[in-house]
Amino acid sequence: MKRKIINDPVFGFINIPDDFIYNIIQHPYLQRLNRIKQLGLAAFVYPGAQHTRFHHSIGAMFLMDEALKTLKEKGHEITADEWDSSLAAILMHDIGHGPFSHVLEHALVTDIHHETISYLMMEQMNRELDGKLKTAIDIFTDNYPKRFLHQLVSGQLDVDRLDYLRRDSFFTGVVEGNIGSARIIKMLDIKDDKIVVESKGINSIENFLMSRRLMYWQVYLHKTAMAAEKMLINTLKRAQELSIDGEKLFASPALSYFLSKKTYIEDFENNGEGLRRFIELDDNDIWSALKVWTNHKDTVLSILSNGMINRKLFKIEITENAVDENRIDLFLDKFVKRYSLSPHEASYFISSDIITTDMYNEKDDSIDILYKDGTIKDISKASDMLNIELLSKKVVKHYFAYLRD
Amino acid sequence: MKRKIINDPVFGFINIPDDFIYNIIQHPYLQRLNRIKQLGLAAFVYPGAQHTRFHHSIGAMFLMDEALKTLKEKGHEITADEWDSSLAAILMHDIGHGPFSHVLEHALVTDIHHETISYLMMEQMNRELDGKLKTAIDIFTDNYPKRFLHQLVSGQLDVDRLDYLRRDSFFTGVVEGNIGSARIIKMLDIKDDKIVVESKGINSIENFLMSRRLMYWQVYLHKTAMAAEKMLINTLKRAQELSIDGEKLFASPALSYFLSKKTYIEDFENNGEGLRRFIELDDNDIWSALKVWTNHKDTVLSILSNGMINRKLFKIEITENAVDENRIDLFLDKFVKRYSLSPHEASYFISSDIITTDMYNEKDDSIDILYKDGTIKDISKASDMLNIELLSKKVVKHYFAYLRD
Amino acid sequence: MKRKIINDPVFGFINIPDDFIYNIIQHPYLQRLNRIKQLGLAAFVYPGAQHTRFHHSIGAMFLMDEALKTLKEKGHEITADEWDSSLAAILMHDIGHGPFSHVLEHALVTDIHHETISYLMMEQMNRELDGKLKTAIDIFTDNYPKRFLHQLVSGQLDVDRLDYLRRDSFFTGVVEGNIGSARIIKMLDIKDDKIVVESKGINSIENFLMSRRLMYWQVYLHKTAMAAEKMLINTLKRAQELSIDGEKLFASPALSYFLSKKTYIEDFENNGEGLRRFIELDDNDIWSALKVWTNHKDTVLSILSNGMINRKLFKIEITENAVDENRIDLFLDKFVKRYSLSPHEASYFISSDIITTDMYNEKDDSIDILYKDGTIKDISKASDMLNIELLSKKVVKHYFAYLRD
Amino acid sequence: MKRKIINDPVFGFINIPDDFIYNIIQHPYLQRLNRIKQLGLAAFVYPGAQHTRFHHSIGAMFLMDEALKTLKEKGHEITADEWDSSLAAILMHDIGHGPFSHVLEHALVTDIHHETISYLMMEQMNRELDGKLKTAIDIFTDNYPKRFLHQLVSGQLDVDRLDYLRRDSFFTGVVEGNIGSARIIKMLDIKDDKIVVESKGINSIENFLMSRRLMYWQVYLHKTAMAAEKMLINTLKRAQELSIDGEKLFASPALSYFLSKKTYIEDFENNGEGLRRFIELDDNDIWSALKVWTNHKDTVLSILSNGMINRKLFKIEITENAVDENRIDLFLDKFVKRYSLSPHEASYFISSDIITTDMYNEKDDSIDILYKDGTIKDISKASDMLNIELLSKKVVKHYFAYLRD
Repeated sequence: MKRKIINDPVFGFINIPDDFIYNIIQHPYLQRLNRIKQLGLAAFVYPGAQHTRFHHSIGAMFLMDEALKTLKEKGHEITADEWDSSLAAILMHDIGHGPFSHVLEHALVTDIHHETISYLMMEQMNRELDGKLKTAIDIFTDNYPKRFLHQLVSGQLDVDRLDYLRRDSFFTGVVEGNIGSARIIKMLDIKDDKIVVESKGINSIENFLMSRRLMYWQVYLHKTAMAAEKMLINTLKRAQELSIDGEKLFASPALSYFLSKKTYIEDFENNGEGLRRFIELDDNDIWSALKVWTNHKDTVLSILSNGMINRKLFKIEITENAVDENRIDLFLDKFVKRYSLSPHEASYFISSDIITTDMYNEKDDSIDILYKDGTIKDISKASDMLNIELLSKKVVKHYFAYLRD
Repeated sequence: MKRKIINDPVFGFINIPDDFIYNIIQHPYLQRLNRIKQLGLAAFVYPGAQHTRFHHSIGAMFLMDEALKTLKEKGHEITADEWDSSLAAILMHDIGHGPFSHVLEHALVTDIHHETISYLMMEQMNRELDGKLKTAIDIFTDNYPKRFLHQLVSGQLDVDRLDYLRRDSFFTGVVEGNIGSARIIKMLDIKDDKIVVESKGINSIENFLMSRRLMYWQVYLHKTAMAAEKMLINTLKRAQELSIDGEKLFASPALSYFLSKKTYIEDFENNGEGLRRFIELDDNDIWSALKVWTNHKDTVLSILSNGMINRKLFKIEITENAVDENRIDLFLDKFVKRYSLSPHEASYFISSDIITTDMYNEKDDSIDILYKDGTIKDISKASDMLNIELLSKKVVKHYFAYLRD
Repeated sequence: MKRKIINDPVFGFINIPDDFIYNIIQHPYLQRLNRIKQLGLAAFVYPGAQHTRFHHSIGAMFLMDEALKTLKEKGHEITADEWDSSLAAILMHDIGHGPFSHVLEHALVTDIHHETISYLMMEQMNRELDGKLKTAIDIFTDNYPKRFLHQLVSGQLDVDRLDYLRRDSFFTGVVEGNIGSARIIKMLDIKDDKIVVESKGINSIENFLMSRRLMYWQVYLHKTAMAAEKMLINTLKRAQELSIDGEKLFASPALSYFLSKKTYIEDFENNGEGLRRFIELDDNDIWSALKVWTNHKDTVLSILSNGMINRKLFKIEITENAVDENRIDLFLDKFVKRYSLSPHEASYFISSDIITTDMYNEKDDSIDILYKDGTIKDISKASDMLNIELLSKKVVKHYFAYLRD
Repeated sequence: MKRKIINDPVFGFINIPDDFIYNIIQHPYLQRLNRIKQLGLAAFVYPGAQHTRFHHSIGAMFLMDEALKTLKEKGHEITADEWDSSLAAILMHDIGHGPFSHVLEHALVTDIHHETISYLMMEQMNRELDGKLKTAIDIFTDNYPKRFLHQLVSGQLDVDRLDYLRRDSFFTGVVEGNIGSARIIKMLDIKDDKIVVESKGINSIENFLMSRRLMYWQVYLHKTAMAAEKMLINTLKRAQELSIDGEKLFASPALSYFLSKKTYIEDFENNGEGLRRFIELDDNDIWSALKVWTNHKDTVLSILSNGMINRKLFKIEITENAVDENRIDLFLDKFVKRYSLSPHEASYFISSDIITTDMYNEKDDSIDILYKDGTIKDISKASDMLNIELLSKKVVKHYFAYLRD
C-alpha cells in the first residue's frame, strides 16, 4: 500500500498505518466530516476556529495510537485487531454529527442524539465492509470485553477530549487552554480493566479539568457564539414552519427533506430516508440556504437570515435567574409593532431558556488515580485543590437573547 | 466606541483601532470573506488549511499597522488619514475574490481578474460610506502621492504576502515555510518614496523568497490540490454547458446566474447583476451544488461531482514537456467506451495545459536593499546566493490530469 | 540613540525604549544576571531550563510596558517618568539574587533576603546615576503615591510572575503550564489605586492560579531539583566549615569571602565588603569550585561535590509526616561505617526538614475582580470553582534526602 | 530498568530506550556537556541562546532514532546493535568540545581539533565500558561497513545539523531559520549504502541549505558574537603569556594547566594530563577567571576581562578586503599612548584576520537526490534555484576588531 502521512499543525506528521484504516478515512461518511466544522459558530468570535470534525478525528486517532503504545510498553496486551479496531472506533466516533450539532438537534430533528446516528452509520459501513468493523463497533458501544478500550474512545479521559481541547486551543488562539496531552498519555495505565492515571500525573489532570472549564466559558459557551446559535435555531424553525405550511423555500434536497416535515428516529433506522438525507447534509447546505433566504418575503425569515449572514447577531444576556416574563412581553410588543408581525411571529426574535451544558455528564463521575502502592483514589479525593463537586455539578444558567436594534 | 480585540492564533491579540475600521470589517463584503477559504482546495492535502480570506485580511491589517509604526519611528510622516486608509486598503484588497479563485476565473466568468472586481466593490462601498474610502482606494490603485503606501498593499514585500506566507505555513503545518515577518518589517524603510530594506535584513529577504518558493511547490501547486482544481473546473464547465443547453441543475440563484450564461466584465460594471450575483457567491454554493449533482443523470457531471465530494480526484502528472497527443487519444478512447460517451463528453475527464504560476509577475522585478552609505542595490545584485534570475523567470511546466480507474 | 531590539523566543522582538533604560540594562549589576540561571538546579530535570535572570528581567519589562499601555488606553494617567521608572523598577527587581537563590540564603549568608540585597544594590546604582532611580526605587519599595505601579512590580498579578510562569513553561517544555499573559494584561484595570481584573477575565485568573500550582509541583519543587538543592546546601556548608577551620579550599576570591566567615546584613550595608563580594558571585564560581573539590582529600566534601558534578544526587522522599528519627540514625550509622566518618561528618549525607514553599505569602491574599456594575469581589468569592482557601494555605510537607548507594 | 523520559521543549518527550544508552548519558563525559553552551558567546546577542551541548546531543539522538525508524519502514535492515550504537555515536559526537569551542582551539591548545579529542575520549569510555562502544566508535570514525550510519552521524544531512539548526532557531527566536527536520527525515532513503533524499523532498533541502546560511550570518557569525569571541581569544592569549612569564593568575587547576604552557596533541594521547585536564574544563572556569582578572594589575588583561564581563565588547568591522595596515598602526598608536603600553601589549586590543567559516567543508560536496526512476542527481544539479557553487564555496571575508573608546 502507499505510505500515507498527514501533515497536522498540532501534532506534526500523522501516519496512516494500513489499508484498513486508509479505507475508513476515504469512506464518504468520513469525507463528509471535512465539510462540518468542529466548533460550529465559534468562528464568529475566533476567526481561526475553522477546523473540521474530520481533522479532529484524525488527531484523535493519532492520540489513540500513542495511548496504545504507552499501555503496551507498560506490559498490557493489545492484539493487532484490537489496535486497528480502536483506531477505527475513534475515527468513526463523530460521523453522526450534523452541521452545527446542537442547532440541528434542537431545530430540525426530534430528539435524536448524534451518538445514535453515529451508531446507525457505523452499522451501515460495517455492512459495506463485510463485517470488518464488528470489533470497532463493539468497542464504541462498550460491548467489547476489554472495556478500557471503550474508555479511551469515550470516557472521562478519552482521546476525543484530549484531542479537541488541544486542537480547539490551537486554532482559537486561547493558548492557556492548552493541555499536556502527551504527558497525560504517558501517565495512563490499566488497573482492573479500567484506565487509571499514575499519581505523579495528578497535576496534569487538575490542569486538564481546569482547562476544559476555561475552554467551555471562553469558547464553547462564548456569548457571541451562543447568540449565533440561538439565532440560527430560530431561523431554521421558522423555515420549517413556513415549509410545512407549503411555502416554497430555496434549499438543497437534503435540507428540504428536513424542513418539510418533522423527523423521528424511525426515519433513520434501517438506512431509511432520514439517514440517507442526513448524510447528504453539511454546513454548506445551511449557509447556502441562509444567503438566499435573506431576500425571502417573509419578514421573520429574511431578518434572521440576514443577521446570520451579515453578523447582526442576537444580543444575549446570561444570568443566574430566568428573565422576567414582563420583559419578554415588552420585547415582543416592540417587535410586533416595529415589523408588523403577529405575536407568534415576533417570538422568533427572542430566545430564552436555561443554558444546557453538556460539559459534565454521568460518565464523568471519576478519574481514577493509581498510587505506587497499588491503591486507587478518585481525583476528587486525590486532589486537595479542585472543588470537584462543583466541577461535576451541572452549572445551570439562564440566557435571554433577542434581536438587536 | 467599543474596544474590539480579535484573537488570532498567528499574531495573538489584534486591535481594531477605531469605528471607521470596525465598520469596514462589519460590511457584508468583508463578512462574505468569512465564507471563502484562503487556500481553496489545498485542504484536500492539508486538513488544517481551513483559514478564510477574512482571517487573512485581518492579519494583513495587523502587519500594515506594524509596518507603519516602524516607518513612523524612523522619522517618516504618516497622517492619521493615511494610516487609517492604509489599513482600510489592505482590509479590502481581497474582497473581489470568488470561491476557489482560479477555478471561478477559469470556469465561470470570462477574463475578469479578481483585482478588477475588488476595485468595483470598493467603489460601491465608497458610495455607501459617503466617500470616506477615497484615500484608501487611491492607495489601492496607486493613485496616492505617497506611493510607498501602495507598495505596502501591493508590492514585492507587501503585507499581503507577509501575512499569507506566515499564515499558510501555520495552518498547513509546513513549518519550514515560516518567514520572519516581524524581522522584515523592522528592517523596512523608505527611500525616494519607495519601500526599501536595510542591508542587514538581506538574509531574511533571501529566506523570504526561498520560503515563498517552497510554499508554492509544497502547498499552492501541490499535485493533489491542483488535480482537485482541474477536476472542479471541468465539473463547473460541464454544468455550465448543460445549463446553457437548457438542462435544469440544482444551484443557488447566484450560481445559477453564472451557469446559465457566459459573463463578461460589462455585467459587473455599475453594480450590475453580475456584480450583485457575484457577491452572493461563496464556497458554500459550490459544495452544495456538487453534492446534489452526484446524483444527476448526466454521467459526466455525476462522476466528476462524486469525485469532488468523495475525494476520488483526478490523477495528475507534472512534466517538463507537454503530454503526447496519442496518449490523450488513448485515454479519450477508453472513457468513450467505458462510460458510453461522445468524445466531447469524454474530454471532461481529461485536463492538460501548462501550469500557470502567478508566483512571479512584473511587479516582482526588484526588492531594493538600502546600504548604510545610502546606496541602493537590487536584491539580485545584493545577494550572492540566490539565482534571482531563475527566481523571477516564470517556471513553465506541463500537467496532464485524468480520471482515475 | 541607537535603536535597540532584543530577540526573545517567548515574546518576539522587545524594544528598548530609550537611553535611560538602555543604561540600566548595560549596568554591571544587570549584566551579572546573565550569569545566574532563573531556575537554578531545575536543569538537572529539564535540560532546556537554562534561561537566565537577565532574560526574565527583560521579559518582565516587556510585559510592564504592555500593562501600562492597557491601563493608559483605559484612561488612566501615567506620566513619562512613571512609565520609565516602572520599567526600571521591574528590570532591577531581581538584581539581589545570588547563584541558586535559596541555596545561598540557606548555606552561605545568614538570614539576608534577596529583596533586601536588591534594595541595597538599587541604592548604590542610584548614587552612580545621580539620583535618577529615585522614582523607580519608590515604586519598588511601595513608597510611591500611585500604589498600583508597585502592585505591577510586586503583587499577586505582577508582571514578574506573568513573565516567569510563561517563560519557565516555554523553556522547560511543560506546555500545560502556559498562561494567557496577554489576555490577563488586557483585562487589567485600576480601581481605587489598586490593580483589578475585569470580570470576564475570571477564567484566565483561575487558570493562572492553577498553572502556577502546576509549575510549583512539576518544576520548582520537582523532587530531583530539590534533591540537588539539598545536596548543594550541604556541600557548601561543609566547605564553609572546613574553610573556617583553616582548611585551604579552591575558590574564587568572592566565594572564599563567604566560605571563610559567617556573613551578616551589616556586611552588606553601606556598600560594604559583603555586598561588593556578593556582586562578584554567580553560578560560575560555584560550579568551578565544585569541580575542583571532587578531588579534595575531605571525604565528605569530595563525595558531595562529585555527586553534584556527575549527577549522583541525593535520593529524596517527600511525605506528609517527618521521617522517623530511628531511620535517620540507621542511615547515619551506615555512612559512619562505610566511609569511616564521625557522626557529625556523616550528617552531611542527610538532609531532612519541612518543604518551605514560598509559593503563597501574605501579599497573595487577594486578586480583586471588577464587575461591570463597579463592584469588586475577591477571586476566592468570585470563583465558584477553585478551593482558594486551600490554594492560599501554606502546603507543608516533609522531605528526607540522603546519599544514594 | 527505570523508564526514563526527557522533556524537550523542541521535540516534546524523548525516550531513553535502554540501560546501555542511559549509562552513556550518565557518564561524566556527557554530563560535562551540561556545562558547555552550544552557542558559546551568541547569548550576548540572543539572550535565550543558553542551551547546552548536552541538550543538543539528546535532541540529535532523538532524530537519529526517527531516521532509523524511517529507514527501517522503507525495508532497510538495521540490527539492534547497529541501532543502539548509532544512538551512542551521535550522543558522544560532541564530547571533545571545550568551552567556547573556537576560542579554545585558537587560544589555549595548539592545532588540536575537537573531533580528535572526541575520538580520544570515546576510546577512554570504551575501555571503561569493556569494549561495548566498539561499533559506535566504528560508526563515528567511518570504519563500519554500513557506511550510511556514519553519514547520519556526520554528513551533509546528518542528525547533528538537523538538530542544531532547529534547536538554535528555537532558542534564539530566529524563527525563519526553522527547518522541516521531520519532513526531511521522512524523505531519507538509502541507495548504494549512501543516504539519499527522495526527490519530492527537494524543496525542503533547498530550504535547509538556505536556513543554514541564514543561521550562519544571523547567529553563528553575528558581528557582536564574533567581536566577543575575538576579545576572549586575546584575553586568554594575554593570560597565557603572563602565566608563562611566571605571573600568578587566578584560575582553576585545569585552566592553570592550559595557561602555564603550550599544549600539543601528544599531551592528549593515552589519557595524558592534557586530556584529563581538558575534561575538567568548561564554561565556568573561563567566566570565573575573567571576573577575577578584571582587577588584575596588568592593564591589558584587566581591560579585556572587564570588557567580557560587563559587555564592553570590541567594535568589529566586516569587509571584503583586509584592513589597511596604516589604520592598524593608527589604532596601535592610540592605545600605546592612552594606556601607556608597549606596541606588543597594545596589539591585544586589536584583532584582524579573515573570517574562518567552518560552514562548508569537503564533506558537504553533495546531497544526493533520488528520483522515482532510481536515478540520482546531486542537489546542485537537481535544484534550478540555488546557486550551489556559491553555497559550497568558502566565503572569505575580513574582519577588523578593536577596543571601543
